Amino acid sequence: MFSHGERESIYKVIYHRRDIRSFLPDPIPDETINRILNAAHHAPSVGFSQPWNFILVTSAETKERLAWAADKERRALAIHYEAEGEKETKFLGLKIEGLKEAPLTICVTCDPTRGGSHVLGRNSIPETDALSTACAIQNMWLAATAEGLAMGWVSFYKKNDVRDILEIPPHIDPLALISIGYTDQYPAKPLLELANWEKRHELEPLIFNNKWGEK
Amino acid sequence: MFSHGERESIYKVIYHRRDIRSFLPDPIPDETINRILNAAHHAPSVGFSQPWNFILVTSAETKERLAWAADKERRALAIHYEAEGEKETKFLGLKIEGLKEAPLTICVTCDPTRGGSHVLGRNSIPETDALSTACAIQNMWLAATAEGLAMGWVSFYKKNDVRDILEIPPHIDPLALISIGYTDQYPAKPLLELANWEKRHELEPLIFNNKWGEK
Repeated sequence: MFSHGERESIYKVIYHRRDIRSFLPDPIPDETINRILNAAHHAPSVGFSQPWNFILVTSAETKERLAWAADKERRALAIHYEAEGEKETKFLGLKIEGLKEAPLTICVTCDPTRGGSHVLGRNSIPETDALSTACAIQNMWLAATAEGLAMGWVSFYKKNDVRDILEIPPHIDPLALISIGYTDQYPAKPLLELANWEKRHELEPLIFNNKWGEK
Repeated sequence: MFSHGERESIYKVIYHRRDIRSFLPDPIPDETINRILNAAHHAPSVGFSQPWNFILVTSAETKERLAWAADKERRALAIHYEAEGEKETKFLGLKIEGLKEAPLTICVTCDPTRGGSHVLGRNSIPETDALSTACAIQNMWLAATAEGLAMGWVSFYKKNDVRDILEIPPHIDPLALISIGYTDQYPAKPLLELANWEKRHELEPLIFNNKWGEK
């Protein structure tokens, strides 16, 4: 079904995908955004519930307010990191800049009520609807990467700030703020790895056989 | 960076991926499994925490016990669905059969303590470690699809049953049971769509501009 070349393309995009903080102001063609959102929409979802919505934020005023919410959280977090020195707080700032620079911010939400009260599977593990939405975000990220775009996932904010700014109903979960745009700073490795914040684990020790801890 | 053909390959695999319940007994080559797990390991993770582990279950006895745990949950769920008729409980059974048939079951876990207490971003939205693990599962799923494999995500079980069977420590979250193998029944559309359980939503109504509900 898939040729060797097609298979290689999948791995190429998986390995090439990065979380980006720095964007050019160039706009993104509507067709490209639609292809990326359609990729997200074809993610798996628990009981085929498709619990996601996508709020496309291009208004400068609204982006400014989202950046304010993220910056407020950054400053609060910085207090918790203050004992650990300057290195530790540097990335918090970088993350926020990306939110202001990118021509498009997408708030990806999860509706835990979609599909009614008896969505298959969600009755056993309630967070499967958020996990489904994360799969949609990963599809979107891989599609964006293949389209030559850069994407960053911002997870510094109070959900109720984002609900207030985007007028999101209280039962809807604003799971992620996604910055999308073009960049001229596409790193070969994760930014946190390049900066020695954290290194990539070896894969082999993370794999067990038949039970936890068994090799 | 990515050619037109490469881009098309990404979309092809995203649209082709399906949640599969029916497997052939044929074993999967080790190199293929390693490529799939390496794809999972290259998912994004909050603060680059890489919170996942992969327990590869090939022991017939252990698979039987996992199927027992899932079947127990299926029977308990069936009681909740009994008012809705036979159609509604049919899929629960199918899901469990897949877990017994597939030559390999992978329990994907999430360790919320990995990276210590100050993982960037996880301090704001704690479930980002589970969302990271879902991104790893989606990478694994796309890689498996491109490799000509079939994969199914089972989310019917009590986490403590799976912890007991696989000897997983209490602080580790057994987020998913994944069945992997080859199949001769690869559907063109989601099984739940083919069976009129749920239909695919139109994408357009799920997209808003600048605030919730605004087109």
